[in-house]
Amino acid sequence: MLPGVGAKGAQRMVYRLLARDRDAGIRLASLLEACMREVGECENCRTYCETKRCPICTDVRRDTSALCVVEGPSDLLAIERSAGYKGRYFVLHGHLSPLDRVGPEDLAIPKMLDDINEREVREVILATSSTAEGEATAWYIARALINAPHEVRVSRIAQGIPLGGELEYTDDGTISHALMGRTEMRS
Amino acid sequence: MLPGVGAKGAQRMVYRLLARDRDAGIRLASLLEACMREVGECENCRTYCETKRCPICTDVRRDTSALCVVEGPSDLLAIERSAGYKGRYFVLHGHLSPLDRVGPEDLAIPKMLDDINEREVREVILATSSTAEGEATAWYIARALINAPHEVRVSRIAQGIPLGGELEYTDDGTISHALMGRTEMRS
Repeated sequence: MLPGVGAKGAQRMVYRLLARDRDAGIRLASLLEACMREVGECENCRTYCETKRCPICTDVRRDTSALCVVEGPSDLLAIERSAGYKGRYFVLHGHLSPLDRVGPEDLAIPKMLDDINEREVREVILATSSTAEGEATAWYIARALINAPHEVRVSRIAQGIPLGGELEYTDDGTISHALMGRTEMRS
Repeated sequence: MLPGVGAKGAQRMVYRLLARDRDAGIRLASLLEACMREVGECENCRTYCETKRCPICTDVRRDTSALCVVEGPSDLLAIERSAGYKGRYFVLHGHLSPLDRVGPEDLAIPKMLDDINEREVREVILATSSTAEGEATAWYIARALINAPHEVRVSRIAQGIPLGGELEYTDDGTISHALMGRTEMRS
C-alpha cells in the first residue's frame, strides 16, 4: 500500500519497534494520526500546511511576480532545497491524464489562471516532471496563458533533468541548473 | 530510525497517505499504537503474541519433543512459511554478543535449558543465523546441552543458507532444504 514497503519490510519495521522502542512506535502513531487529521492545503498555493496559508505564501521576502508550477508538494520541497528560486509556487497535486479522467479542473488550473491574472504574475515557470503527462500539463498551461490580459513570460525548466525522471528524486544541483537554464515557451 | 526508511522515503509515504487516503493513515496509526501497547511475548517460547501463550505453543498437533531455536520472531515466521517443521520454537530475541554485553541471560538461555530438561525435549534444532554471532550462539547452546540429564539430539540447520546471510530474507525452498539437511552437532 505504501510506496516502497512490502510485507517483509513492514514486518521488519514493526518488529524493530516492538523489540527496541515501543514508546517511539506510540509517538509515531500519534504523529501520524495528527498529521492525517490536521494537515490541510494552503488556500493560495495548495501545498500541504497546517495553517490557512503556507509559510512561503506569507513570506514577504518572496518574489510575488514569479510563480513556479509543480505537480506535488514534494517537488516544491525539492526545489526549495536547491535554493535557486525565490518566487512563489502553485501545486497541481497531479498532472493532466485523460485516461484517468484527470482534467484541468481537478488540478485547479482555472483557479491558478485567475490568480495569475489578478495578481499580475509576470513569469510562470512550469516545473512539472519531464514525463509525457508532465510535458502535456506544461503545454496546456502555456497555451492557456497566451490569452492572459497582461504580458506573462512562460518558461519550462531545462531538460537537464533526465528524461522520464521524476523531479522529486533529482539531486539539488541538477534542479538548480535546470531552473537557471529555463527556456521560454512558445506554442 | 526504521530499517530501510530514509527521510525521502518517509516523506513519500506520508504524502501518499495525505493525497490518497487519510482514513487509511488514521487506521494505520491506530493499529500501530494498539500493536505497540498490546503485543507481548509468549511466556513459553517468547515469540510476539497478544495472549499469554502463542498459537503454536497451544497447538496440540505440534510435536513437543522437538524445539527449534531462532534469533527472532521473524525467523520463526520464515520457518513456518517453509512448512517443513512441525515442532515448537524458542525465540532468543538476539544472539550472544560480548561486545554489546549480550550474555546468555539476556537471551533467556538458562530458562530455555530448564524447559528442555523439564519437558524432556529430545531434539533441539539450532536455527540461528549463519553469521559469526549466530554460529557462536548455536555452539554455546550445543555445549550447554551436553550436560542435559536426558539424551538430547542437537542439530544445526544445514549451511544451504548463504554464508553471512540472515534467515529472515532466505527463500522458503532454501529454508526447507536447510531444515531437512540438518547435521548433528558434536562439540
